[in-house]
Amino acid sequence: MIIEKIKGPADVKRLSMDEMVTLAAEMRNALLHKVSAHGGHFGPNLGMVEATIALHYVFNSPVDKIVFDVSHQSYPHKMLTGRADAFLYPEKYDEVSGYSEPTESVHDHFVIGHTSTSISLASGLVKGRDLLGGKENVIAVIGDGSLSGGEAFEGLDFAGELGTNFIIIANDNQMSIAEDHGGLYKSLKELRETNGKSPNNYFKSLGLDYMYVDGGNDIGQLIQAFSEVKDIDHPIVVHINTLKGKGYKPAEEDKERFHWTMPFDIATGKPLKESTREDYGDLTALHLLEKMKEDKGLVGITAATPAVMGFTKERREAAGKQFVDVGIAEEQAVAMASGIAKAGARPVFGVFSTFIQRAYDQLSQDLCINNNPATILVFCGSLSSMNDVTHLCFFDIPLLCNIPNLVYLAPATAEEYFAMMDWSIRQDAHPVAIRVPVAYGVKHASGKVDADYSDLNRYQVTHKGSKVAILGLGSFYWLGEEVRQGLAEKGIDATLINPRYITGTDDALLDELKQDHEVVITLEDGVLDGGYGEKIARFYGASPMKVLNFGAKKEFVDRFKPSELLKKNHLTKEQIVEDVLNVL
Amino acid sequence: MIIEKIKGPADVKRLSMDEMVTLAAEMRNALLHKVSAHGGHFGPNLGMVEATIALHYVFNSPVDKIVFDVSHQSYPHKMLTGRADAFLYPEKYDEVSGYSEPTESVHDHFVIGHTSTSISLASGLVKGRDLLGGKENVIAVIGDGSLSGGEAFEGLDFAGELGTNFIIIANDNQMSIAEDHGGLYKSLKELRETNGKSPNNYFKSLGLDYMYVDGGNDIGQLIQAFSEVKDIDHPIVVHINTLKGKGYKPAEEDKERFHWTMPFDIATGKPLKESTREDYGDLTALHLLEKMKEDKGLVGITAATPAVMGFTKERREAAGKQFVDVGIAEEQAVAMASGIAKAGARPVFGVFSTFIQRAYDQLSQDLCINNNPATILVFCGSLSSMNDVTHLCFFDIPLLCNIPNLVYLAPATAEEYFAMMDWSIRQDAHPVAIRVPVAYGVKHASGKVDADYSDLNRYQVTHKGSKVAILGLGSFYWLGEEVRQGLAEKGIDATLINPRYITGTDDALLDELKQDHEVVITLEDGVLDGGYGEKIARFYGASPMKVLNFGAKKEFVDRFKPSELLKKNHLTKEQIVEDVLNVL
Repeated sequence: MIIEKIKGPADVKRLSMDEMVTLAAEMRNALLHKVSAHGGHFGPNLGMVEATIALHYVFNSPVDKIVFDVSHQSYPHKMLTGRADAFLYPEKYDEVSGYSEPTESVHDHFVIGHTSTSISLASGLVKGRDLLGGKENVIAVIGDGSLSGGEAFEGLDFAGELGTNFIIIANDNQMSIAEDHGGLYKSLKELRETNGKSPNNYFKSLGLDYMYVDGGNDIGQLIQAFSEVKDIDHPIVVHINTLKGKGYKPAEEDKERFHWTMPFDIATGKPLKESTREDYGDLTALHLLEKMKEDKGLVGITAATPAVMGFTKERREAAGKQFVDVGIAEEQAVAMASGIAKAGARPVFGVFSTFIQRAYDQLSQDLCINNNPATILVFCGSLSSMNDVTHLCFFDIPLLCNIPNLVYLAPATAEEYFAMMDWSIRQDAHPVAIRVPVAYGVKHASGKVDADYSDLNRYQVTHKGSKVAILGLGSFYWLGEEVRQGLAEKGIDATLINPRYITGTDDALLDELKQDHEVVITLEDGVLDGGYGEKIARFYGASPMKVLNFGAKKEFVDRFKPSELLKKNHLTKEQIVEDVLNVL
Repeated sequence: MIIEKIKGPADVKRLSMDEMVTLAAEMRNALLHKVSAHGGHFGPNLGMVEATIALHYVFNSPVDKIVFDVSHQSYPHKMLTGRADAFLYPEKYDEVSGYSEPTESVHDHFVIGHTSTSISLASGLVKGRDLLGGKENVIAVIGDGSLSGGEAFEGLDFAGELGTNFIIIANDNQMSIAEDHGGLYKSLKELRETNGKSPNNYFKSLGLDYMYVDGGNDIGQLIQAFSEVKDIDHPIVVHINTLKGKGYKPAEEDKERFHWTMPFDIATGKPLKESTREDYGDLTALHLLEKMKEDKGLVGITAATPAVMGFTKERREAAGKQFVDVGIAEEQAVAMASGIAKAGARPVFGVFSTFIQRAYDQLSQDLCINNNPATILVFCGSLSSMNDVTHLCFFDIPLLCNIPNLVYLAPATAEEYFAMMDWSIRQDAHPVAIRVPVAYGVKHASGKVDADYSDLNRYQVTHKGSKVAILGLGSFYWLGEEVRQGLAEKGIDATLINPRYITGTDDALLDELKQDHEVVITLEDGVLDGGYGEKIARFYGASPMKVLNFGAKKEFVDRFKPSELLKKNHLTKEQIVEDVLNVL
């Protein structure tokens, strides 16, 4: 195969057009076999095969620098820059990450996993080059879906003022993760339909030069276009029209399902494993759809990831006007939610833990200063969740729990989760975020759960013992129960507490514990720094109570095994019991 | 005067055109007298007098809802909605805030003080209205400067898909706080020069309808335009061309100086008080300008607030390509800084504490995961800084200090500040943020300060005592010195420590303190929750060491007296000494 001989971009430059066409087919085949067995981003990579070949044929990476937005389309680039083996041989599949990774290759310039960042990052390479007197090309590659993020706009707007070489490839596959949302997409469509001639041109309105390439999967057209813009002396957007999922029929036909996929059967496109477990996304969508029937003001909101809250295409259609996808635009989602709540309707924004951090200022300014009663469901917040360094889901507690006015709740069971959600939707006094349980799956309550959470920061004692008190936050309530049992085996009847509220301390209860407890331990499924446990440590700072905070060390970790990360951070039952015994 | 009789919009609707022109002159006169005596936003308000009269003449506030971006132009609105007295009578000047404030008036819908939020917030009012079956007009008013922020783009893009009433007034006064920056402003200029006819139209490219009003200070033209769009059944942008500073010559001529101003002499425009104190902004600019001469890769960055880091117009010109204003676009600033550092040049981004929170995801993803050696100077981070609820500057510690890889430094003196800055610019190992001292002014070091900060988290013991150890962070080192003296008067020779590093604990030193100390106190000029002191409380959790954390309670406070806020939070020398004695 040709692909086996490609050790770097120099090998691409030596190919004939026919060989490049063959190479593209081989790359697609490799993508199909790897992703169908291993899972990963699929549709966006299939669409970018030809453009990536053309980029490496025309430009001189790594001297010329190519920055791939969000990395969803970076697999072909990895294949052509010395990393093809990781796509060809199953035993090597795990040798590359799913994202741009400078430690893997000099052809990768940044670790990138959140969207809409490529133009801004690349603009820094441009500015640095110009300050230091370099001459190389800087190229940012960004998908149409990523253009809806504010940072991408800020980058384009800035680029429009740069009078120097900067090439922005807008990879228009007419899809975000799900369908595109935003007025911008109307004018992109006009551009495609007029072969780039429509005067209604977003990029030009930001002061940028512009070129359209209809054959975004035609290597010849792409090489010609890229050759024309190479060494250009000003910023230009090259808008290429590509087909998401190209070459694999099920992926061309169901673009959303194959944007990112778990392993699947090549013949049918069907997932190899259908999950039969109860899933909080599904449960959430079903619950909200039921409530929407009674309450016309209830509206679900997503920022381009409807699946996380269970809103499949069918369910989005069923919800109609009561479900809004704002595109990849978390700032808009949070601010709009505040406005909807102010208008008296009932917004519920469902978002991955790793993406809520894209809207800190909106949470603080637009939502919490205004104290509007919007509901935010934070999904996947856990050390046992996504394990790519760009998608860590364990910083949401420090992010959210230190913003005034916000009530951040941590349910331990499904019943508590829905009771909290229903309360939040009903009440008018607070912005509320709820950390959807993760670590122990869908657990069910043994008794009745509270319906009203308006008496803030009231922790729940579920077992009254003495000497040691365990504050098990959210899912880690169940770790707390394990620890309680472990201590019981050692003859210690520990108190077990479900704190429920992340954003505050139950001072009366904590004071009461001083009477017959020597040690309080906190268990949280997230980073320790700035989190929940430190508030408890501060509370007891001047008292003789000993406090042990269990949670994760502040560090960026990548492609870890959750069980190993937990162990490393002393988050197993055995370690915790031992640590407690050591301080008694 | 007419203005004295305006108790609400109904009174505006009764006026003749001549009376409205007179009213405009009276309003301008009131603005001039109030702001010249009291300080405040000036130029943007002068430019919006006519448009605000026309808005209230045409629309039916508060049923129709008007949302003012950033509130820099909201004073005329306040005057026409029952709050004129606060602009007419000096003894009532403080009865209104400088920002939109729902607790003041039903005509204000949100507390707003950060830019670029109005369209997103108003889009929520639109969505809420549509869900609940309302018919009112929703109007967002946004300045051209605010359009450079990503959230404004996200809002416009979302609006472009809304098939329902939504009126966006783009108030184009051709200025941001300083001059506008971004390619967008070229096409806005084209629109102004072609009376709105240019096909190169940013708003239309986002799927929005569009109308241009050249006479943005002509009440008649404005009334006609607003009447045309009233009750429209789809979103439209009404682009109005206004004059910033209109009616006061010095403000028309020096728009940047009069965007926001301290009290000034009406005859000359000169500030009533010239500050003669040393100022960290000035010192920073002078220091960087000197270093820029030696290092062509050194580049200062601002997101539309160059003054905070001392970069006046003259100094920006002196820096040339080594100073970049990205416009109101903090996300771009941080991501670009990461890219510049990656390219081997030396970015230094100066930013207000309250605005760095607009770029949390960029700090985490674009900068810190990539571990690029950019320098961020955080100005005004203190409880004794800006006191409007939207501009609180005491949440930067929890925001920054819990992000892995970042080194957040807290200098106590000018010498330490510049030594840290020089080190940060030199080194390649870490992204670094520096909290510029505030509370005790520019203090000078008595001895030599360290030049190298690469041995992370090494605290400095400046006085070795026993029993009590004081960790005085940054400016609060000086509060620590006061407390040390206070304790000395009570016969306690306390240890005083300058921690210098906010992002980590000096474990060896903290362990050593256990030998001959019973109490450790932490002093931080910010909110306690998620901050520095809690890390110390956690460190000592399982030990007998008592820890007292001093800092501010987590709450939004508005228009407070810093001295009172400090007292309320037990942050005076006397209170701290007493609290320490109580636990000994």
